[in-house]
Amino acid sequence: MTVKTSAARTVTVATVQFEPNVGDRAGNLAAIDRLVRSAKTRGAEIVVLPELADSGYNFRDGDEVATLAGPVPGGPSAETLCRLAEELGLYIVSGVAEQDGDRFYNSALLCGPEGYIGKYRKLHLWNNENRLFRKGDLGLPVFDLPFGRIGIAICYDGWFPETFRQLALAGAELVCVPTNWVPMAGAESVPEPMANILHKAAAHTNGLYIACADRIGIERGQSFIGRSLIVGPQGWPISGPASADREEILLAQINLSSVTETRTLNSFNHLLGDRRADVYG
Amino acid sequence: MTVKTSAARTVTVATVQFEPNVGDRAGNLAAIDRLVRSAKTRGAEIVVLPELADSGYNFRDGDEVATLAGPVPGGPSAETLCRLAEELGLYIVSGVAEQDGDRFYNSALLCGPEGYIGKYRKLHLWNNENRLFRKGDLGLPVFDLPFGRIGIAICYDGWFPETFRQLALAGAELVCVPTNWVPMAGAESVPEPMANILHKAAAHTNGLYIACADRIGIERGQSFIGRSLIVGPQGWPISGPASADREEILLAQINLSSVTETRTLNSFNHLLGDRRADVYG
Repeated sequence: MTVKTSAARTVTVATVQFEPNVGDRAGNLAAIDRLVRSAKTRGAEIVVLPELADSGYNFRDGDEVATLAGPVPGGPSAETLCRLAEELGLYIVSGVAEQDGDRFYNSALLCGPEGYIGKYRKLHLWNNENRLFRKGDLGLPVFDLPFGRIGIAICYDGWFPETFRQLALAGAELVCVPTNWVPMAGAESVPEPMANILHKAAAHTNGLYIACADRIGIERGQSFIGRSLIVGPQGWPISGPASADREEILLAQINLSSVTETRTLNSFNHLLGDRRADVYG
Repeated sequence: MTVKTSAARTVTVATVQFEPNVGDRAGNLAAIDRLVRSAKTRGAEIVVLPELADSGYNFRDGDEVATLAGPVPGGPSAETLCRLAEELGLYIVSGVAEQDGDRFYNSALLCGPEGYIGKYRKLHLWNNENRLFRKGDLGLPVFDLPFGRIGIAICYDGWFPETFRQLALAGAELVCVPTNWVPMAGAESVPEPMANILHKAAAHTNGLYIACADRIGIERGQSFIGRSLIVGPQGWPISGPASADREEILLAQINLSSVTETRTLNSFNHLLGDRRADVYG
């Protein structure tokens, strides 16, 4: 793939894989501070953190969510993340537990050198999340950053190819995926997690970069699988997959301008242009 | 996965991987006859053949297509395939070059013990096919067979997640994929073909079986990658992948009634029911 230097929009993306602890917001934010600073020293310009990185995942009940969630922007986690991004002069995409009045969302925050930028609320809630959170009501927003256009998806959103397709059609070149992948029944002995396969396929069929930051550890009996991954627009991993159980930072220098030519397959075919909207909308 | 025997709808599906030769319809139909009989002796009840199995793929020009294509039903390939299915008492899904007046389609024929059943015309044409064929104009039909509901997709159709999603929403439990996968630029050294990854992901995200019958060989300089594959509704191969370059028949006994419970993930989640139609249609 030849990319004209004049058009290159390069950025170093990092995914942070670590173990949040449910209920310990201060400890989680301290771990995030340490890991984002580490990513920065290794050249990261945009850092993706796991789903619910500030709160942990396996809540006892709605009351526990209420004690851990906060406004986005303005709450304690959002403020800490925004200040960190401002201080370090980089972008952060982090899963956060969001409170909006008496409503709670499994959300992701985007902030940068200029502070708070925007948020996404998980559209597809997994299992017990349906008891604890409202379904996302902000659609699938895209954000224009200096190096390109990004979208956000969270964990089970990735089981719906429509998620990545809609983001690609809205111009996303990089999708940041805070996630808490759990083991799948009967999949203990498979060669690679289905989660990795799905994101390779999504990157390939849409011609975009995908950066998945997963968590590790066992929380109140629920284990998580790690295997964070950064995938290029042809669908192949460009960093990772990470281990199943260790704190790890993946990095990749990527060029978002390459997405345009990746999507043009030959003189007849374009990954998005070939869609048969007359058949399936 | 526990399946109630009372509800089991089992069928043995086979994919035939072989090398058609462009221009040699008689020779290709003879090879198909030999291979479908072989699959039958091994228990096959539905046999999937490659894309354009009767004509070969790498046509010189439209005139050559015109000499090789025929009406579906009624043309020489369709008649031969229908008679074979009737004689052997099984179902066949085969790629065929279709002529309809002055129009040509990259089609697939479905026939069974009762003869001709229906056809599908490839929606997404790859590269030079755009010069030779019309785009499919029959949508994505599904067919009710005694063991379950099947859909058909052809090769590059599989690059569009919408294909499998629409078929699943229309009730398909098994998608038969006649294909002529070609090597991808820069993918010579990858651990597995992206085509295999895409169909694992499609089976998993839709909870259905997918049976891909690829061709092998090099035709006028165009090589094909083999690696035919039958995937279960959880996304893992249940037969294959086949070799890259050998004639091979894959078989799998499958139970289409298992699709229903595979799609129900837990008391909150259903693979199709969780779609956010309010967001992406």
